[in-house]
Amino acid sequence: MYTIGVDIGGMSIKIGLVDETGKIVARSRVKTADTAAQGVNDIVIHINKILEENKLDVKDINGIGVGCPGAVDSATGTVVCLPNLGWENVPLADMIKKSFDTNVKISNDANVAALGEAIYGVAKDYNSSVMITLGTGVGGGIIIDKKLFEGGWSRGAELGHVTLIMNGEPCTCGRYGCVECYCSATALMKQTREKMLENKDSKMWEYVGGDIENVDGKTAFECSKLGDNAATEVVDTYVSYLGECALNIFNVFRPEAFIFGGGVSAQGEYLNDKVRAYCEKFDYGYKNAPRTKILTATLGNDAGIIGAAALIK
Amino acid sequence: MYTIGVDIGGMSIKIGLVDETGKIVARSRVKTADTAAQGVNDIVIHINKILEENKLDVKDINGIGVGCPGAVDSATGTVVCLPNLGWENVPLADMIKKSFDTNVKISNDANVAALGEAIYGVAKDYNSSVMITLGTGVGGGIIIDKKLFEGGWSRGAELGHVTLIMNGEPCTCGRYGCVECYCSATALMKQTREKMLENKDSKMWEYVGGDIENVDGKTAFECSKLGDNAATEVVDTYVSYLGECALNIFNVFRPEAFIFGGGVSAQGEYLNDKVRAYCEKFDYGYKNAPRTKILTATLGNDAGIIGAAALIK
Repeated sequence: MYTIGVDIGGMSIKIGLVDETGKIVARSRVKTADTAAQGVNDIVIHINKILEENKLDVKDINGIGVGCPGAVDSATGTVVCLPNLGWENVPLADMIKKSFDTNVKISNDANVAALGEAIYGVAKDYNSSVMITLGTGVGGGIIIDKKLFEGGWSRGAELGHVTLIMNGEPCTCGRYGCVECYCSATALMKQTREKMLENKDSKMWEYVGGDIENVDGKTAFECSKLGDNAATEVVDTYVSYLGECALNIFNVFRPEAFIFGGGVSAQGEYLNDKVRAYCEKFDYGYKNAPRTKILTATLGNDAGIIGAAALIK
Repeated sequence: MYTIGVDIGGMSIKIGLVDETGKIVARSRVKTADTAAQGVNDIVIHINKILEENKLDVKDINGIGVGCPGAVDSATGTVVCLPNLGWENVPLADMIKKSFDTNVKISNDANVAALGEAIYGVAKDYNSSVMITLGTGVGGGIIIDKKLFEGGWSRGAELGHVTLIMNGEPCTCGRYGCVECYCSATALMKQTREKMLENKDSKMWEYVGGDIENVDGKTAFECSKLGDNAATEVVDTYVSYLGECALNIFNVFRPEAFIFGGGVSAQGEYLNDKVRAYCEKFDYGYKNAPRTKILTATLGNDAGIIGAAALIK
């Protein structure tokens, strides 16, 4: 039996045919439309295209899962608000069901990514896991007993919007000092640029060709590996933010696995080792606390499609 | 059918016979012994006493629930560590089962209190609730779908040990800036004393009879009600800590109900109104976020017995 996974993004909507092992066996992609109605139309067209190309009928799939970048009410299948797309109060599941007589489920993209890792990815051997995605923002996904925990009204699991430093940096959510303000790739780039401006002889300047606009989430990490002190300071401070965020999650959920996803997680074990060392220093939250495994997401760009398919079980 | 609830505390062990409505119909109490063996012996003696006095047999009860002030492995029924009592790696459930052929379950005292409120107390009409107890420390209890969520190894739900201000005040857990350092009754008293030393003409001095050692968790609240500016500053700052703690919990769990328990919660609606106003200011965590009810625990000193009994279902 196959499942359709739909990954709605700000730039494009990606659709995949996913087999029982979580492998994408066929895929399609369309530019994200300006309106929800057109977006749903595109999704329907591309699902039909994939089904036809693979000589499948809707009876051959066990459902359609959709991941959305924003607030979703998964119980009713409604998109509450996708700020970057301008979609509001869209009964997405019902709209898709009009074209396909099958099970349709939707969830938030960070939740979906965490579920994908838990069912088919790096956390497939663990019953409980928490994932944070370090990208433009910081998303969170929580898996308890192999099931997605979305919080009340499907509006919890906002692990990027928990204070790390009360009254700290202003956050996009309206509060101050959230995890997102310190741990996102955006925040890391800001921290990198600030340190460069204080250290005109840092190797980081050479790395970005003298143009601070070229700073990205790799700049500090790569220059720290070359022995640049200023870059190492950026990395150490950034690791301390990630470490505190991790310890907080350990103390609340004590999951078997904690997963970094998103752009910054490309640093893999180099980053994980540093976060482990930080957490070790604080005994993983408190004395004799059980150890949570710190891991890197493995599904990469396919997490959205595979995780969306994992919503159908 | 009755249930036995056992509330192990630093000073005394309280044992109650609880009916199906959560009412304590008989109770006993014994000073907490120096050793676990003697403690278990006392528990057995007092359960037998209650059963005899009420002409009940062990067959007339559906189980024994125990709340413990420390780390517990509820899956195995083992007390991992009760720091204040010196108990370590005690197979408590098995020890009690040797005397009573019935179901025995144990959990941490803050979890048990939250479960009691969820089943028999202020949150009985809500499916999900989170409680924090504002006492010497800050304990946390999480209820999801009417069930206790203890985290992996039963070692999560430590809501007092989540950073509010990274690198802030030193915490008993070894980290810095935890919720407990700002929100406990102990922290409130410290904040009160510091403000008094800065404000020699504050009404708080009169309230405590000129002796700063008499400061308690009520001092700032009661003097603020009398219009004392310094006291109001203490209350407003304390409320901001509670508000940030609440918003963090809302963003992660978005529970239907959020409950204050412990000594400071005696301020009831006076405190809740202020926390609500703070959360309102930040739109309950983010724009158009669903509203969590902010409530006060109602089981008071009986929460330990009633909540322990609620472990048996």
